Amino acid sequence: MPQTLAIIGGSGPEGRGLALRFAMAGYPIVIGSRDAARAAEAAMGLLDLNAGLPITGAANTDAASLADWTLLSVPYEALGATTQALAPVLAGKLVTSVVAPLAFEGGIAKAVVVSQGSAAELVASLLPDSRVTSAFQNLSARDLLKPEMELDGDVLVCGNDKDARAQTIELAASIKSLRGVDAGDLSNSRYVEDLTALLLNVNKRYKAHSTIKLIGL
Amino acid sequence: MPQTLAIIGGSGPEGRGLALRFAMAGYPIVIGSRDAARAAEAAMGLLDLNAGLPITGAANTDAASLADWTLLSVPYEALGATTQALAPVLAGKLVTSVVAPLAFEGGIAKAVVVSQGSAAELVASLLPDSRVTSAFQNLSARDLLKPEMELDGDVLVCGNDKDARAQTIELAASIKSLRGVDAGDLSNSRYVEDLTALLLNVNKRYKAHSTIKLIGL
Repeated sequence: MPQTLAIIGGSGPEGRGLALRFAMAGYPIVIGSRDAARAAEAAMGLLDLNAGLPITGAANTDAASLADWTLLSVPYEALGATTQALAPVLAGKLVTSVVAPLAFEGGIAKAVVVSQGSAAELVASLLPDSRVTSAFQNLSARDLLKPEMELDGDVLVCGNDKDARAQTIELAASIKSLRGVDAGDLSNSRYVEDLTALLLNVNKRYKAHSTIKLIGL
Repeated sequence: MPQTLAIIGGSGPEGRGLALRFAMAGYPIVIGSRDAARAAEAAMGLLDLNAGLPITGAANTDAASLADWTLLSVPYEALGATTQALAPVLAGKLVTSVVAPLAFEGGIAKAVVVSQGSAAELVASLLPDSRVTSAFQNLSARDLLKPEMELDGDVLVCGNDKDARAQTIELAASIKSLRGVDAGDLSNSRYVEDLTALLLNVNKRYKAHSTIKLIGL
């Protein structure tokens, strides 16, 4: 029986895209939002795309309480406060940060410097009793939301707990044609998160939705 | 007639690998080193791998003076001083930084924070009269040095001058099976340089020589 996943910030494009793909892979999904009605609306929208999927919605705390495993997909500005508020219900559980800390200046994406090193390390600093991994930052939300589209590419997975990293690699590989790559300790998450800024800037220039693949593994 | 390329720090593995590949593509190469004898020795070593290539060696200043286009491939620690010393002979010319600012802690590669934003922006700050691009940081030196090996992958090219960027993209594509990708302004170079740390850490884990490719362009 696959674990139930909560996706906090799951009413945003990246969160909805991941919810759709993981549900297609058979994981029961609870979309979390600050507003329970908005979470339910996002769940309904995904069921319109692909009826019969195991997707529901709830307020953030309820979603995280219901789930075995929580993915954080909120804007970076909200990450600290959201994580702190959920710390009690996330204790003892697996938590995956999907967040890339970005700012935009004149249409150009810039990686924001995080004093803890990365968004994922910020999460880990606030959740000492959870196992924290980092993944999925570099996938195009628009492509995730096209259920029939195959997503060639690699998901770079970081985390300090080897078993948590292995589970996250398996979750990545549950999306058809994607490969999970073991990118080591959470201290490597900065490079993966920052890469999102580069991909967005390249995408703008090429009018594309690119992602990355490691050649030669 | 292809431009003559100087590769400063060309006696190191990355510099020698690039020298070999660009020479194979028909570019006359001058390997630069602080010590002219060491530069000549590196050139001879490459001619042993592939006789008849247009590769010679010279002291750094002579190499940069002889060339139309200079690539900087020195360790980050030496980049500021080396660039400053060459500024007069590089004025008015095209200069490409190949440098990734790395440090190693307990066998783990870490990207060093550069106050100018990136190694390439440090170079640009010291060479106001040159056109500066950034490229080639993510290629495996060992694979570059195997003349018969095809190098599938992308070279992400940054630079503030569009024509200089286009020339550097063309240089990347001169290596068989590689693609040059326009990664925009020099402010994006940080993400490309830092990615080198991630690739080295992944390579160690997988015992591989990986590089990246953008999927979906």
